[in-house]
Amino acid sequence: MRELLVDLHRELIRWGLVVWTAGNVSQRIPGEDLFLIKPSGVFYDALTPESMVVCDFEGRLVEGELSPSSDTAAHAYVYKHMADVGGVVHTHSTYATAWAARGEPIPCVLTMMADEFGGDIPVGPFALIGDDSIGRGIVETLTNHRSPAVLMRNHGPFTIGKDAKAAVKAAVMLEDVARTVHIAQQGGPVEPVDKAAIDRLYDRYQNVYGQK
Amino acid sequence: MRELLVDLHRELIRWGLVVWTAGNVSQRIPGEDLFLIKPSGVFYDALTPESMVVCDFEGRLVEGELSPSSDTAAHAYVYKHMADVGGVVHTHSTYATAWAARGEPIPCVLTMMADEFGGDIPVGPFALIGDDSIGRGIVETLTNHRSPAVLMRNHGPFTIGKDAKAAVKAAVMLEDVARTVHIAQQGGPVEPVDKAAIDRLYDRYQNVYGQK
Amino acid sequence: MRELLVDLHRELIRWGLVVWTAGNVSQRIPGEDLFLIKPSGVFYDALTPESMVVCDFEGRLVEGELSPSSDTAAHAYVYKHMADVGGVVHTHSTYATAWAARGEPIPCVLTMMADEFGGDIPVGPFALIGDDSIGRGIVETLTNHRSPAVLMRNHGPFTIGKDAKAAVKAAVMLEDVARTVHIAQQGGPVEPVDKAAIDRLYDRYQNVYGQK
Amino acid sequence: MRELLVDLHRELIRWGLVVWTAGNVSQRIPGEDLFLIKPSGVFYDALTPESMVVCDFEGRLVEGELSPSSDTAAHAYVYKHMADVGGVVHTHSTYATAWAARGEPIPCVLTMMADEFGGDIPVGPFALIGDDSIGRGIVETLTNHRSPAVLMRNHGPFTIGKDAKAAVKAAVMLEDVARTVHIAQQGGPVEPVDKAAIDRLYDRYQNVYGQK
Repeated sequence: MRELLVDLHRELIRWGLVVWTAGNVSQRIPGEDLFLIKPSGVFYDALTPESMVVCDFEGRLVEGELSPSSDTAAHAYVYKHMADVGGVVHTHSTYATAWAARGEPIPCVLTMMADEFGGDIPVGPFALIGDDSIGRGIVETLTNHRSPAVLMRNHGPFTIGKDAKAAVKAAVMLEDVARTVHIAQQGGPVEPVDKAAIDRLYDRYQNVYGQK
Repeated sequence: MRELLVDLHRELIRWGLVVWTAGNVSQRIPGEDLFLIKPSGVFYDALTPESMVVCDFEGRLVEGELSPSSDTAAHAYVYKHMADVGGVVHTHSTYATAWAARGEPIPCVLTMMADEFGGDIPVGPFALIGDDSIGRGIVETLTNHRSPAVLMRNHGPFTIGKDAKAAVKAAVMLEDVARTVHIAQQGGPVEPVDKAAIDRLYDRYQNVYGQK
Repeated sequence: MRELLVDLHRELIRWGLVVWTAGNVSQRIPGEDLFLIKPSGVFYDALTPESMVVCDFEGRLVEGELSPSSDTAAHAYVYKHMADVGGVVHTHSTYATAWAARGEPIPCVLTMMADEFGGDIPVGPFALIGDDSIGRGIVETLTNHRSPAVLMRNHGPFTIGKDAKAAVKAAVMLEDVARTVHIAQQGGPVEPVDKAAIDRLYDRYQNVYGQK
Repeated sequence: MRELLVDLHRELIRWGLVVWTAGNVSQRIPGEDLFLIKPSGVFYDALTPESMVVCDFEGRLVEGELSPSSDTAAHAYVYKHMADVGGVVHTHSTYATAWAARGEPIPCVLTMMADEFGGDIPVGPFALIGDDSIGRGIVETLTNHRSPAVLMRNHGPFTIGKDAKAAVKAAVMLEDVARTVHIAQQGGPVEPVDKAAIDRLYDRYQNVYGQK
């Protein structure tokens, strides 16, 4: 699980979602009120399975020698309040963050968005690091919402999933659709996909896509 | 042929046409009503010659252990109805998909577009996955059309070719011209290339370019 | 010299100036009316020193087993009419081609442009492949001009230099400034650098920069 | 220290901040009025620890066989007049240079900007290479300013830090926020982060982020 988490951080680099040390992935430890997360300010190249740290749902370091990611409190709050979430990702990926800066949801104008996000991608509140307000903003926005992604205002995206890999996938797809829809709208108005088609696409992709 | 197909999927990554697992290449098996295609939801790095699956022209799995690409029905329909097509590619490459989202054909304003596409790049209908409507949309748009590429509305591009390599080439060139024309138009109006010049360029490129 | 030419083609890939097989570099053979150029339609990965072909100043193949680049006539014309030119590069790099599509010169608004191009980057005429009209357009535009780059209308850039390496450098710098100035202008008006400053920068860079 | 400097130049390439040979990093030699800097016009791939040159605070070569970077005078001026600065970086990274071309400060609309830059990123004067006017422009703009980055008008960014690594980090973060804010503003108006929130974020990031 630690090795997978290192590999998933490399995926953030590979798909251009992060620069320097600015992004993090966490994975819930099944059956325990704990999760694994990236240490703070460490280069992606320098991450090793051993360097990953274990935190509890109050965001406190439980195991590991390095300080946990400065976003640990937000991850912890999500695990504590969303029992189905097994993975959380935070990045400042360019296009998703641009929508977040304007506080504008990404409209569902692509079949790929219907597949993965099941509709528009919502905006969360402006919240400061330091207490649980980022975590609360994520949980309040994504509870009972199909989208595994939220655009935190003036900040950047958080994505969730059944495990860390699913949350990374959502982060990759989010940046891809954020970019495509931005570019589409630069050239003129874009017709949204209608609700019934979105529902059909979402249902199919969630249940049929991939290998059994 | 299986090895070539793996390599051609890697070209999609190399030229930035796909993210995660979202794109696929297929190749007709000469002399049979069958084609090779990518398995569904498998990472490009994990593709092996053996992992490629064989389907018939109804899109049914004929050989292979993995489920075929979720776009198999569209590929199958194209092979069934366009006898000259030996390869099909589907991506959600950013700029081509942006034009598709607006439902706007890409105007032929570059000599490179005249060479490869012989004119404007057309838009196909909005069609849902699950029956043959995507396949029909591709075939109806590209039959008797010079362009090997169609922009499926709110979805993304499909390209065709005499073999899988030619279809991948068309997908690469499509994204390149989609991006260049988008950027050109952002800066002001762009004069189209006149019809006679397009015809001359298309004829030359199709018959003279490359090695014999 | 053949090896260097292979390496310089790889630089086109490295800096993102070309896709697939669409770009070429040539190098004058000193003291002869001949030059080395890329064979037509061959992948950059597959280029070897031996695969490079030798052509004369009429664009005819003199040595080599492969057909020369389809742009050979344009390169030949430049060598024939500009005795100081030792290298020529042609690409369809995105931003330079976008300016070319609009037929708009790139205004000199950056010190880096003053350094390398000595002023605005000029537009050449619309010209069709097949005779010497592209070559003539390049020569007429660049003769007695500081800029080593011309934007051929609806087509793409050609760059020249004292050798192939200098022409590749100009192609790389061209795309860089074409992109930066495009993006700058998207955000509002851009003040040009004044003529006296351009002259001083150009003179210094041409004579002082780099190693002796 | 020489090895680190070579590696830091590679970071400029890795994060896409420079093309060809156009950018440079320097590092103050602690306790001496000297600094290490890149030689002029040498490829990033060709840089070795031995190729780095030592200059004094008048910008004169003190040790090394190659000519120092053509921007050496600007680096020297900064070290001479800002005692806390241990590293300086200069690039022409695309988006930062685009803001510089318009002479427009980057408004602080992202939490990541508040963290690293503590407010808007300021514009410095238009200044020509050849005397100390670039150095003076940097020092006058950044003295008593939180931002470690200045956008030199019609030229490009310079960043400073307690050492070369911190200055490279600032250069990487600068381009990232320059791009994100540009793209955000293309889609409509962007609300700035309020002053009290900026102060809190800046204070936390400067004092809590990373490992002790």
